Amino acid sequence: MIHRLCIFGVGLIGGSLAQALRAAGTVQSVVGCSRSEANLVRAEELNVIDEYTLDPVAAIAEADMVVVATTLGATRSIFEKISQHLAPTTVITDVGSAKARVVDAARACLGKNINQFVPGHPIAGTEKSGVDAAFATLFRDHRVILTPLVETNRDALAAVSKMWRETGANVVEMDVQHHDDVLAATSHLPHMLAYALVECLAGMDESNEIFAYAAGGFRDFTRIASSNPAMWCDIAMDNRDALLAVLTSFTATYDKLVSALESNDKEQLVRIFTRAKDARERAVLKTP
Amino acid sequence: MIHRLCIFGVGLIGGSLAQALRAAGTVQSVVGCSRSEANLVRAEELNVIDEYTLDPVAAIAEADMVVVATTLGATRSIFEKISQHLAPTTVITDVGSAKARVVDAARACLGKNINQFVPGHPIAGTEKSGVDAAFATLFRDHRVILTPLVETNRDALAAVSKMWRETGANVVEMDVQHHDDVLAATSHLPHMLAYALVECLAGMDESNEIFAYAAGGFRDFTRIASSNPAMWCDIAMDNRDALLAVLTSFTATYDKLVSALESNDKEQLVRIFTRAKDARERAVLKTP
Repeated sequence: MIHRLCIFGVGLIGGSLAQALRAAGTVQSVVGCSRSEANLVRAEELNVIDEYTLDPVAAIAEADMVVVATTLGATRSIFEKISQHLAPTTVITDVGSAKARVVDAARACLGKNINQFVPGHPIAGTEKSGVDAAFATLFRDHRVILTPLVETNRDALAAVSKMWRETGANVVEMDVQHHDDVLAATSHLPHMLAYALVECLAGMDESNEIFAYAAGGFRDFTRIASSNPAMWCDIAMDNRDALLAVLTSFTATYDKLVSALESNDKEQLVRIFTRAKDARERAVLKTP
Repeated sequence: MIHRLCIFGVGLIGGSLAQALRAAGTVQSVVGCSRSEANLVRAEELNVIDEYTLDPVAAIAEADMVVVATTLGATRSIFEKISQHLAPTTVITDVGSAKARVVDAARACLGKNINQFVPGHPIAGTEKSGVDAAFATLFRDHRVILTPLVETNRDALAAVSKMWRETGANVVEMDVQHHDDVLAATSHLPHMLAYALVECLAGMDESNEIFAYAAGGFRDFTRIASSNPAMWCDIAMDNRDALLAVLTSFTATYDKLVSALESNDKEQLVRIFTRAKDARERAVLKTP
C-alpha cells in the first residue's frame, strides 16, 4: 500500500497511474503538483487526485512514493527543487520515454538519494495529452520498463515494480542505454516519420484535397502525428544520438526502396515488401 | 438492378462488392472468374458468388456488368481476353488503385467498347487479402472515385455510379491523372514508408527484441505494411511517376527534420511537429 503518492505532472500518464492505483485500492492519498493550477484543479474535479500544491517541496512532504510524470524537459528542474528535501525512505521514479539524460540529471541532482531513484518508462499512451485523456486501464497488459542503476536500492526497485504491477502492467528490467536504443527504433523513429509525412502532405498545393481523400490506412498511419509537439521535441532531443543512429538506418532502407522503384526493379520491391510483411506479422504476434 | 454481375478476382474488394450488392438486393446473379479455382470454390462456399468459371469469355456471357477486381498486373490481360466478346451494352469497370495505366490498357485493348468502360477506385480496404476477408459493409461511408474518360458513355457511368451507391459508398468523379497524384500522396507514399520502416527494423541485430517492445503506436503505424506485397508492387510500378514525385517531396521534408535534430534546432522541430499535428487534425475532421 502506498500511503501518500506524489505525482508531478498530472497528465495522461500521471493521471492514469493515479486512477489505476485508486481502482486497485493500493494508494491512500494522491497529491498532484505541476506548474499549471488549472490542470490541477481539473484533476481534483475528476477525482484523479485528493489535493494539490504548486510547491514541489510541499508536494513531497510525507510522500512515500514520488512519480515525475512531467515532460522530459521539466524533469531536471524538479530533481533540483526537491533534492534537498527528500526523506531517505522516499522512493522516486519517473516515466520518461528516453532514460539516459534523466539518469544523468538524477545523478547530478539527487546526491545520496540517487539510491532511492528507479528510472521507469511505461510503454503505453495515446496520441492525446492531459488529465482529461487519463483512464485507469491505460497500463493493463502493457509493458513497463524499469532501468535500475548500480546505485538503486533493491527495496526501492521492488516498490516501483509492485506499483506498476498493481496497474495491470508487465514489468521488465533493462539497461539504460539498451532501453534508449530499442525505443529509438520502435517508437521515436515512427513518430518522426509520421510527423514528416503529414508535414510533407500539408505543404503540397492540393493539401486540402489530399487530406479529404485520405483513407483509413492514412488515419492509422498518422495517428501518432497528433501527439504533443513539445513533448516529442523533448523526447527527440533527449534521445538524439540513438534516434540519429536509427534515422541513418532508415535512410539506407528508404533509399534502397526508392532506387528499386526508379530502376523498375520489381523483384527487389517484392522482396522488401514481403520481408516487411513477414516481420511485421511475427512482431504483432509477440506484442501483448 | 444488375441481372448478371461478372467479377474477375473475387478477393477482398470483389468479394465485398458482391456481398454488398446481394445484401442490398440489387443483383440477381454473380459469376466469379479468376486463375485460382481454389479461391472460386471458397467464394462459392461462402455464398459470395452463385457460380464460377475459369474461362473469361464464358464469364462475361450475358453479364450486364463486368468488374475487374484482380491485381493491377492482371488487368490488361483480362481486357485482351474479353475485348472481342463484349456485348455492346455490357458495362465494364475496375477497382485499381492507380488509373492511368489501366486507362492506357483499356484504350489499347477494348476498341469501340472503350465507351462502356468506367475506370473506378473504391477508397476502402484492409491489410488483409482474399475472399475470406470480404464483408458486405466494407464500402459503407467510404469514397469511390470514378475517373470517366471523354469516350465514356453517360449511361455506363450512371450504372457504375448507381452500383457503388448501393453499397453505401459516396461516389465522386475525378480526372485520371489527378486521381493518381492524390492517391500517390495519401495512400501509396504511406505504404512505402511503412514497408521501409519495418524492413529497416527487421534488419537490425536486435530486431526480435525491438519488435517485442513495439507498442500500439507501432502496430497502427505499420498495419499497412501487412498488405499484399505483389499487389503493392503492381500499384507502385503502375503509379511510378506520381509516386516518385511525392517521394521526392517526402525526402526534402525528412531531410529538414533530420537536419533540425542534428543541429539541435528545437524551434524547428516544434514547428514541424506542430504544423503536422494541426494538419492531421484538420484532415481527420474531413474524412468520413
